[in-house]
Amino acid sequence: MIGKLNHVAIVVPDLEKATALYRDTLGATVSAPVDQPAHGVTVVFVELPNTKIELLYPLGDASPVGKFLASNPSGGIHHVCYEVPDILAARDKLKAEGARVLGDGEPRIGAHDKPVLFLHPKDFLGTLVELEQA
Amino acid sequence: MIGKLNHVAIVVPDLEKATALYRDTLGATVSAPVDQPAHGVTVVFVELPNTKIELLYPLGDASPVGKFLASNPSGGIHHVCYEVPDILAARDKLKAEGARVLGDGEPRIGAHDKPVLFLHPKDFLGTLVELEQA
Repeated sequence: MIGKLNHVAIVVPDLEKATALYRDTLGATVSAPVDQPAHGVTVVFVELPNTKIELLYPLGDASPVGKFLASNPSGGIHHVCYEVPDILAARDKLKAEGARVLGDGEPRIGAHDKPVLFLHPKDFLGTLVELEQA
Repeated sequence: MIGKLNHVAIVVPDLEKATALYRDTLGATVSAPVDQPAHGVTVVFVELPNTKIELLYPLGDASPVGKFLASNPSGGIHHVCYEVPDILAARDKLKAEGARVLGDGEPRIGAHDKPVLFLHPKDFLGTLVELEQA
């Protein structure tokens, strides 16, 4: 079912420093910061040859990564995103096998304008998993 | 400097359940468990089309992931591994820029029989980063 690793998301306490670290120290190709108010984050995309790292910083008071940063003030890996060919088929299979889908269980339009779902970390080895329709 | 994301490592509390989760529930291709006594882990490799997920379980009393599992009993994402073309050049550049290399600073032979280094999470956005010579 799952295909490519679409991205690894890392929440960071300082987007400018994080950008400099990935661009200058690690020598990767990074984007300018992109505000995504619908998702409560500002994102810097790190383009690797085979996948992306997304550096996330809270945007607005209701940011979904604000609490994470409060608990992890140095930052940390927040989630992994796997691609699936059909998000509704994936959801129905996962739910039938007892996995919990976060929110109301309906896919939302994610940061790449594709349908996404998040799965409960307790059901996935302590890992927050995002599924994105490829 | 950094190239491909070689793998994401996830420490798991039960390797058999974790294998079943990735193989049966998520539908990925997984390996049999591989004991790596030199690294204090048993590993199941999850092959995705563009990278790997490595499911790690402690092996032996001095396992480097034993403490992590004690602190994160549900499991969790442990590190990311980026490929570099020349590990000594990478190390020297990183050290010159103030990043801390774990251990004695000399590359060790890693789980894929290639030279690896680990970088201090405090210098890399709360993320434990492994570098592997490609």
